[in-house]
Amino acid sequence: MAPTASEDNVEVPNKSRVTVVGSGNWGSVAAKLIASNTLKLTSFHDEVRMWVFEEENVKYLPGIKLGQNVVADPDLEHAVRDANMLVFVTPHQFMKGICERLVGKIREDAEAISLIKGMEVKMEGPCMISTLITQQLRINCCVLMGANIANEIAVEKFSEATVGYRENKEIAEKWVRLFSTHYFMVSACEDVEGVELCGTLKNVVAIAAGFVDGLEMGNNTKAAIMRMGLREMKAFSKLLFSSVKDSTFFESCGVADLITTCLGGRNRKCAEAFARNGGKRSFDELEAEMLQGQKLQGVSTAKEVYEVLRHRGWLELFPLFTTVHEICIGRLPPTAIVEYSQS
Amino acid sequence: MAPTASEDNVEVPNKSRVTVVGSGNWGSVAAKLIASNTLKLTSFHDEVRMWVFEEENVKYLPGIKLGQNVVADPDLEHAVRDANMLVFVTPHQFMKGICERLVGKIREDAEAISLIKGMEVKMEGPCMISTLITQQLRINCCVLMGANIANEIAVEKFSEATVGYRENKEIAEKWVRLFSTHYFMVSACEDVEGVELCGTLKNVVAIAAGFVDGLEMGNNTKAAIMRMGLREMKAFSKLLFSSVKDSTFFESCGVADLITTCLGGRNRKCAEAFARNGGKRSFDELEAEMLQGQKLQGVSTAKEVYEVLRHRGWLELFPLFTTVHEICIGRLPPTAIVEYSQS
Repeated sequence: MAPTASEDNVEVPNKSRVTVVGSGNWGSVAAKLIASNTLKLTSFHDEVRMWVFEEENVKYLPGIKLGQNVVADPDLEHAVRDANMLVFVTPHQFMKGICERLVGKIREDAEAISLIKGMEVKMEGPCMISTLITQQLRINCCVLMGANIANEIAVEKFSEATVGYRENKEIAEKWVRLFSTHYFMVSACEDVEGVELCGTLKNVVAIAAGFVDGLEMGNNTKAAIMRMGLREMKAFSKLLFSSVKDSTFFESCGVADLITTCLGGRNRKCAEAFARNGGKRSFDELEAEMLQGQKLQGVSTAKEVYEVLRHRGWLELFPLFTTVHEICIGRLPPTAIVEYSQS
Repeated sequence: MAPTASEDNVEVPNKSRVTVVGSGNWGSVAAKLIASNTLKLTSFHDEVRMWVFEEENVKYLPGIKLGQNVVADPDLEHAVRDANMLVFVTPHQFMKGICERLVGKIREDAEAISLIKGMEVKMEGPCMISTLITQQLRINCCVLMGANIANEIAVEKFSEATVGYRENKEIAEKWVRLFSTHYFMVSACEDVEGVELCGTLKNVVAIAAGFVDGLEMGNNTKAAIMRMGLREMKAFSKLLFSSVKDSTFFESCGVADLITTCLGGRNRKCAEAFARNGGKRSFDELEAEMLQGQKLQGVSTAKEVYEVLRHRGWLELFPLFTTVHEICIGRLPPTAIVEYSQS
C-alpha cells in the first residue's frame, strides 16, 4: 500500500482494541459499523469483540453480515479484558448488573461509550447511564444518540448520530472516527447530559404525537405538538443540568431523533391506538396486545418526569409533559393534548 | 356586562381599526381569527375590513363563516383608508404593485404585518416582503409565520404561529393579541429577518425531503435530511443577517413549519414524484401536471439560494442546499441527496 499523509497510515504502537457489550439489533449494527472502520484505521486492531448471551444467535441481523473481524464471545469478563474502548449497548435495565460484574475486570485506561437510550428520571435526578458507568467502573463515558433505526442503518441507509462528551474532545473524536461511514455521519457535541437526556425525553413527546395521530388532527397540529415537546425537552434538561446547551437540540440526537420517533416508533403507535379508543383501553392492555408484553418507555418516562415536576413545583412550566402523563393515567381525555391556555 | 380587571374592558379612546389586504384561503382564515378577537377586545373596533378582488367570491371558505363583522371591500384605497393596522396576505408577486398603489393612501400612524411567505433571495440580498412594505409605505412592518395550513386552522384545529418584530415589542404584543385564540397560539420573537427567512427557506428543505420519500429511504434518513436542512436554514440566515437568533429556529416559524412542510405540502409531493421518476421528468413537466400551472416555490428558491452561495463562495458550507438545486436542474441524480462527504 502506498503511504499517504492520512492518519490511517501512521504506525501506531498501541493500537486500540474495541469490545461491544451487547448484541441486540442495535448492538449488531454498531459492531458492523465499527468493524468496517477498524479494518481501515491503523490506530485500531482489526478484531472487534462482541459479548453475546448465546453466541450462535447473533452473528447476523437477518441478511446482514457483521464483518469477519467481529468475534462473538459469550464470556463477559473475557470479552472486555483486553479492550481499551468499551461500547455499551444492552437494554438499560441490565446495565447495573453488568457494571457490578465488570468492577475490577477492565483495563484501567479503558474509555466507554453508551448507546443505551432510556435512563430513568428519578426524583433526586436522572440516572444517566453514562454516570452509572463512570461511577461504577471509574472510567470516562461518552454517549452516542441520534435518529438511529437499527434496521435502516443495517441496510446502509443514510443516517446521522451525535457523540456527547464531557471535556475530552480528543476521545470524542476517536469515537466519531470509529463509528463514521459514508452512510452514517457522526458529529461530536460537548454536552453528555443534554445528548443522553434527548434519547429519553423524546419518548414522552412521541406519546403526544401519537395522541394527535389518533385524533386525526393533521400535520399542522402534530408539528406544533412536536415543537412544544422539543421546547420542553430543552427546558427540562437545562433545569436539571445548567451545562446543557441549546445547540444540542439542533443535533441528530435532538430534532432528528424526535422527528423519527414521532413519525414511526412504538410509543407513537400505541399512543395512537390509545387515542383512537378515546382512552377507554389502558396502556397496559394496549402494550400487552401490541408489544408482546414489552413496556412502553414513553409512558414510564412521562410518569417519572411528572413526579420530578410535581416535586419541584414545575408542573405549570411544562404543560405538554404534564398533560401527556395525565392522559396516560386517564385523568384527562386524549383531546386534552391540544388544550392549553395562552401563556 | 360586569366590569372586570382585564384589559378587554378598559375604555380606549382611540380604538384600532384592522384591514386585511388579501382574500385567499389564508387571508380569509386570518380575517376569521382577527374578527373573533376584535369583538372581544375593546381596544379594537369590531369591524374588520377585507380587501377582495371580487366581493362575492370570498366571504366564506367552504363551509366556514368568517364572522359577521368582516366587511369585504373591493376598493383597495377605500379598504385601507381608516385602518391603523394593516394585514398583508396576498400572493408575494402582487405586493410590489399593491405597495405602489398605497403610497400616500394610508394613515401615517399605520402599522403593518405580513403573512406572506416566499420572498425572493436575490444576489444583492433577500427581498424581504417586510422590508418592501417598510420602504415603500414608510411604516413599521412585523411578520407572522408558522406551521399554518389554512384549511386546518379554518376548522379550528390546534396550531401555532410566530410574530417576528423589530425592536417595538409593544406593537408585536398587540398583533399577538389580535391573532391568538384558544386553538391558535401566537408568540412574539424579536427577529423579523429570521422569522421571514424561515418561511421561504423551508421550501428548499421540503424538496430534499420529497426526494427522500421518492427514493423510499425511510424515516431515519428523512429526519437526518430535515435536520441538515434546518441547520443550513439557520446558518444561511445568520450569514445574511448577523442579527438572526438561533432561538428563532425553535419557534413555530422554524422547526414546526419545517415539519409540516416536509410531511405534507406540494413542494414535498412534486419532489417525491421527481425522484420516483429518477429525475427523468423535469419539474416544469411535473408542475404542469400536478399543480395546474402553478410553480413550485422551493425549486425557484433553491436556484436563488444557489446563486447567492456561488456568488459569495459559500457552496461548500451548504451541501444540502447546493445538492437540492443540482438535482432540480438534472446535474445530479436524486440519489445524491444522501451522498455527502464526512465534514
